Amino acid sequence: MSLELSTLLRSVPTRVPTTIVLVVIDGLGGYADAKRGSELEEAHTPNFDRLALEGASGLVDPVGPGITPGSGPSHLALFGYDPAAEVLGRGALSAAGLGFVLHPGDVAARGNLATLDERGDILDRRAGRLPDEQAVQVVRLLREGVDLSPLDVEVFIEHEAQHRVLVVFRGPGLDPKVSDTDPQALGVPPRAPNPYAHHAERMALVVARFLEQVNALLESDPRANTLLMRGFEGARDLEPMQRRYGIDNPAGIAVYPMYQGLARLVGMEVLKATDREDQIRLLEDHWASHDYFFLHDKAADAAGEDGSFEGKVAAIEAVDAMIPAILDLGPDVLVVTGDHATPSQMAAHSWHPVPAVMWGPRVGRDDVATFGERAALAGGLGRRPTRELMGLMLANAGRLEKFGA
Amino acid sequence: MSLELSTLLRSVPTRVPTTIVLVVIDGLGGYADAKRGSELEEAHTPNFDRLALEGASGLVDPVGPGITPGSGPSHLALFGYDPAAEVLGRGALSAAGLGFVLHPGDVAARGNLATLDERGDILDRRAGRLPDEQAVQVVRLLREGVDLSPLDVEVFIEHEAQHRVLVVFRGPGLDPKVSDTDPQALGVPPRAPNPYAHHAERMALVVARFLEQVNALLESDPRANTLLMRGFEGARDLEPMQRRYGIDNPAGIAVYPMYQGLARLVGMEVLKATDREDQIRLLEDHWASHDYFFLHDKAADAAGEDGSFEGKVAAIEAVDAMIPAILDLGPDVLVVTGDHATPSQMAAHSWHPVPAVMWGPRVGRDDVATFGERAALAGGLGRRPTRELMGLMLANAGRLEKFGA
Repeated sequence: MSLELSTLLRSVPTRVPTTIVLVVIDGLGGYADAKRGSELEEAHTPNFDRLALEGASGLVDPVGPGITPGSGPSHLALFGYDPAAEVLGRGALSAAGLGFVLHPGDVAARGNLATLDERGDILDRRAGRLPDEQAVQVVRLLREGVDLSPLDVEVFIEHEAQHRVLVVFRGPGLDPKVSDTDPQALGVPPRAPNPYAHHAERMALVVARFLEQVNALLESDPRANTLLMRGFEGARDLEPMQRRYGIDNPAGIAVYPMYQGLARLVGMEVLKATDREDQIRLLEDHWASHDYFFLHDKAADAAGEDGSFEGKVAAIEAVDAMIPAILDLGPDVLVVTGDHATPSQMAAHSWHPVPAVMWGPRVGRDDVATFGERAALAGGLGRRPTRELMGLMLANAGRLEKFGA
Repeated sequence: MSLELSTLLRSVPTRVPTTIVLVVIDGLGGYADAKRGSELEEAHTPNFDRLALEGASGLVDPVGPGITPGSGPSHLALFGYDPAAEVLGRGALSAAGLGFVLHPGDVAARGNLATLDERGDILDRRAGRLPDEQAVQVVRLLREGVDLSPLDVEVFIEHEAQHRVLVVFRGPGLDPKVSDTDPQALGVPPRAPNPYAHHAERMALVVARFLEQVNALLESDPRANTLLMRGFEGARDLEPMQRRYGIDNPAGIAVYPMYQGLARLVGMEVLKATDREDQIRLLEDHWASHDYFFLHDKAADAAGEDGSFEGKVAAIEAVDAMIPAILDLGPDVLVVTGDHATPSQMAAHSWHPVPAVMWGPRVGRDDVATFGERAALAGGLGRRPTRELMGLMLANAGRLEKFGA
């Protein structure tokens, strides 16, 4: 069914001057327990409730039943791509987030500056979440000190935020099929980079040499004395939304680089925002020139990951307060949903379904009058894979022609 | 999505010490009519209702909309396999149930001892449900009398229960693509074994010779004077649950050989039980050493097939009474559902959806407080293919890692 849907969408897009707005509350989904409802259910959200009353609600599954998605697959699903088929590595995501354009043959990886103890075991996978100004100095040291030219390899090291860096290897015969050196555990040594495939042996050697030099350069640093690497990945070409859906000028308005990068990967113009107020200002400023807007808000996910029920409620209420300004612009279709669930009970991403509400003059009303997980069970959107929202948004914006005679 | 899902599950399993219990009430599903609710709805099930209140309910479809499943596909779906892709013949099922290990190249079939009238038409497809002790004697007669060595074929005849036997042919060049000789009708003669494919011609000849000898040997028996054969099938390899899901020690606790065999087919250790009390005792005895338990109860299906509404209600209530003992063991995830529907109004398996309830600390509550077909329509599990339950069980047991970065 999935493949058929994307074929259908490709065959029918039409171009009409209508505007779609997709508001993504990162980590929105949660669940009720014996104590209380989910964060969304307990939050005071008069504007979301109005959308639910006037539109149609439902529950969406980002990747599949029981599958807890990372940010990459869950956003690809929101943009209508098949999240199981188009798997993005952490390296590709980091590169996208930094605006680093990978060339064919490049291999990118995410690096964590980390702390090893005197035995060489991992003491802190994030070097105490190294402050940016210190991390920038460490990155500068590595840039100046690392030299893989004897292996005919050029290395780019880019600081992302805190302990997070992007490493890109460029040279002949590189292959991303190399295992993570980050064991994602404490009290054990980093893993050796192992090739998954015969043709990745050179790459594994390059990574090993790189890490030898890194470790030597950082030896005297009390906190950031090694780099843990994961998500080796080559350049990927995703079909842009413009060609796939006939959306002429899609824009992504996000504060965090990762989500800016995901928007860029599918062809959106990235409008970098500093906060919610800035997001609304950017939306207003670009309203006339774009026909699709993706607005990303990170706070609910961050609070959920911290296990803060109240923090997540507050984050959801803050996005709710943005809705009147968006409606004032006159969108043809407005969708509010999440990329995945981050229940504060679990303090982590989860597999739980995510509530979604779709609003617009032709969406049709159901009997749901509040925005929440349990209310959405009875909603007109039903329960469906996240990626099916795109076809419905396009249809409700009048952007799909009749299929067949 | 289905195919992708199985790939996803394979890619993410992690091993944590949590325990999953799947209780299968054979033939659970039913339907309300003008007279009353379904058997489950009318049954007094305080323990199932507690699970529904504290967990999430839904309706599952074993194979597909409108498809009435046999025991093989419906159980494969419960174990997370694609029931449409992994088709098991009755012969393979019988072999599995008896613990008869098929070798590559073997062809197995289910045989019914049956009664032909003097014209050679079928009078009774089950020879009056021949008592076991008589059937064993008939089987011994056949074992001693049948000789296919001139065709270079060895034959194994195993008594299953009552009129049911397993026949396995072993020898070079055998192929299961042979039609059933059982017409599943009365007043007509058995069919000749016909090859579906050119390369099954030898097999059809072997079966024909076999049946000639069987009929000669049984000629004088007043009840069991022939053998009707169906479900010719070769050895099949299903990927075991251990490799597929990272479940280290799955166990199946069942009274009936067929369900023991189905459990064995997917890699479970089979714990043979004599009755419900014995099932609970086995569950308690093996609790510490296994991480997944499949408990099968046959009575509801048997009553449904007999058209007994009250019998099915009583069978359901008897399984409900097992729940406190299961909960006392502290499962991380408990699911109660059925393999398919057997509405007593139809006295047969049917295509109707099957209620399911999932219980566990991270399942999340919906607003459903009773276990039943109509209540489950509003439940948090939604309406979904049966096979999707496996991913949700693994996720709720904390056994799946995050997919993608």
